Amino acid sequence: MSNKVSVLVAGSWGTALATVLADNGHQVLLWSRNEEQVREINEQNRNSRFLQDVELSPLIVATHSLQGAVEGADAIIMVVPSSGMREVASNMRPYLNKDALLIHATKGFETGSLKRMTEVIADELPEINPNRLVVLSGPSHAEEVIRKCPTTVVVAAQDLEAAEAAQDLLINAYFRVYTNPDVAGVEVGGALKNIIALGAGLTDGLGFGDNAKAALMTRGLAEIARLGTAMGANPLTFAGLAGIGDLIVTCTSQHSRNWRAGNKLAKGIPLDEVLQEMGMVVEGVKTTKAAYELSRRYDATMPITDELYKVLFDGKSPQLAAQDLMGRVRTHEIEEVATDAITNVLK
Amino acid sequence: MSNKVSVLVAGSWGTALATVLADNGHQVLLWSRNEEQVREINEQNRNSRFLQDVELSPLIVATHSLQGAVEGADAIIMVVPSSGMREVASNMRPYLNKDALLIHATKGFETGSLKRMTEVIADELPEINPNRLVVLSGPSHAEEVIRKCPTTVVVAAQDLEAAEAAQDLLINAYFRVYTNPDVAGVEVGGALKNIIALGAGLTDGLGFGDNAKAALMTRGLAEIARLGTAMGANPLTFAGLAGIGDLIVTCTSQHSRNWRAGNKLAKGIPLDEVLQEMGMVVEGVKTTKAAYELSRRYDATMPITDELYKVLFDGKSPQLAAQDLMGRVRTHEIEEVATDAITNVLK
Repeated sequence: MSNKVSVLVAGSWGTALATVLADNGHQVLLWSRNEEQVREINEQNRNSRFLQDVELSPLIVATHSLQGAVEGADAIIMVVPSSGMREVASNMRPYLNKDALLIHATKGFETGSLKRMTEVIADELPEINPNRLVVLSGPSHAEEVIRKCPTTVVVAAQDLEAAEAAQDLLINAYFRVYTNPDVAGVEVGGALKNIIALGAGLTDGLGFGDNAKAALMTRGLAEIARLGTAMGANPLTFAGLAGIGDLIVTCTSQHSRNWRAGNKLAKGIPLDEVLQEMGMVVEGVKTTKAAYELSRRYDATMPITDELYKVLFDGKSPQLAAQDLMGRVRTHEIEEVATDAITNVLK
Repeated sequence: MSNKVSVLVAGSWGTALATVLADNGHQVLLWSRNEEQVREINEQNRNSRFLQDVELSPLIVATHSLQGAVEGADAIIMVVPSSGMREVASNMRPYLNKDALLIHATKGFETGSLKRMTEVIADELPEINPNRLVVLSGPSHAEEVIRKCPTTVVVAAQDLEAAEAAQDLLINAYFRVYTNPDVAGVEVGGALKNIIALGAGLTDGLGFGDNAKAALMTRGLAEIARLGTAMGANPLTFAGLAGIGDLIVTCTSQHSRNWRAGNKLAKGIPLDEVLQEMGMVVEGVKTTKAAYELSRRYDATMPITDELYKVLFDGKSPQLAAQDLMGRVRTHEIEEVATDAITNVLK
């Protein structure tokens, strides 16, 4: 069965997902605000700003008309930066078929409201049944998906049928899709791992080594699970692809923007210079602030997030932050990794 | 407080742990069967076979007398290859102070009996209270510990006082030690992660990329937890340093013997040639066989272990094994990662 499927917008991950859809025989409309990018995709089958040297499928057609992309679409995949999600969802409203399958693959919270992306979309599109909103996440570098390297992801929706429809749309021999009913967990895991990736870049930048990084990731996952559980997620989600899996791929790749930002901070470069140098959105910086605020709202202990917040926004030296994390008082604590989050469920 | 502490034997991890003890002010006796190595350690403060260019503390004294190392020792740390554990424990028996603290840091099962290392030690040293036997594990490259890079480990014993005594002996500013009552979990996690490291080397050798490796590690952890839980472990242990933590450090390091062996297998080199070329013990190979047998004994599903077993011992091609893992039928399964293991506890 071929569907009309649209992907918003034509960044690297959006283009990679469009490629998966095209490989599965779907006609894909790829939306971009940038007319030159639209022309390049349509005339040369290339998206050189994000994916150099990749030839795109002729089944992918770009458009800069949101109306054209949204109207009549059976399914829409939103891969919009978290800061633009509300506006794009709102702009879609007049054209949207209310039975369309809506999937998003955006990692982050809305600044200020601290809402998850499905909450933002539900705010702006009240005609859509919120139980049918799908989030897609998991360990997936776009560059590898484009090269058809074996990849696994999770799609989550409260309504299993919606998750299965997303699975049917995307699954193929190199792109394995699992369903999960835990929307909050998949969204929180995807957003918060960027904080730990920042921390991993920082640890590597300080020359601490692999032992320290593995400890940071293990204990980082524990605090992600702690906040996520307080926010209503199933702690088991954090042991899966959208938790550990995504954390591993992000923290061990030097291509991650978050890792690179942390690495530069460790060299003593101030945050505003780091962001200016990189010239790109570094989701982990905004997410650290959001998680810091969420940890207070939900009364969740997050020592790694706290220290990163101090480094990013209070001028604390990375060395001192790392020392404070490692050098806590000599306690005989029973290992607490991930325990408290899961203990809450066992109660 | 200074203790007489002995470490058996003087491999890289034994020497690293001896260094931690010396940094904490303890007199350390390091046992080796190799007289030349003993002489080098005592006369030049070096152990060049395992740790080139490292100057050892003068508080570390080597001996090739097992009696000299064991008699009068307040604590003994056993870092013996799994195949030699039973013999060494048995040989210690005449000299051992039955109140000595016994810690082991060996990762693997005994071939044939499939026993864990504390079970082997308890068999051979019936005078020792088995609840006081301690296992040490966690993400810890020896080379980094020697350079005093921040490192975290877990010590587990059924008797909390024994675990705390081990913690007191080893903890310092760069070596952070947590206690955990789950002896079986810590031992199983440490042993089985070597299988996944083999698999990671194989995946990398096939050129599959980071997405596939993260998926392998996530689902590998799930099957480790599944077998471990069936063997009596607490599934939460696998979310901690001796589980995820150790898995991360082993699978992402190209220095791991297991990773290197897997990598060579992917290039089509047969197992016996790989082992001959490496000239060292590759614990993951024996452990794959042990886990394959254990999974049948405990009725635990372990698809990754099964495929690796076929590659190692049945001549299956790594490509085909990887395909069989990825390309299972198109199912609508709820994500099963780690779920079944933990679900058993929730029941």
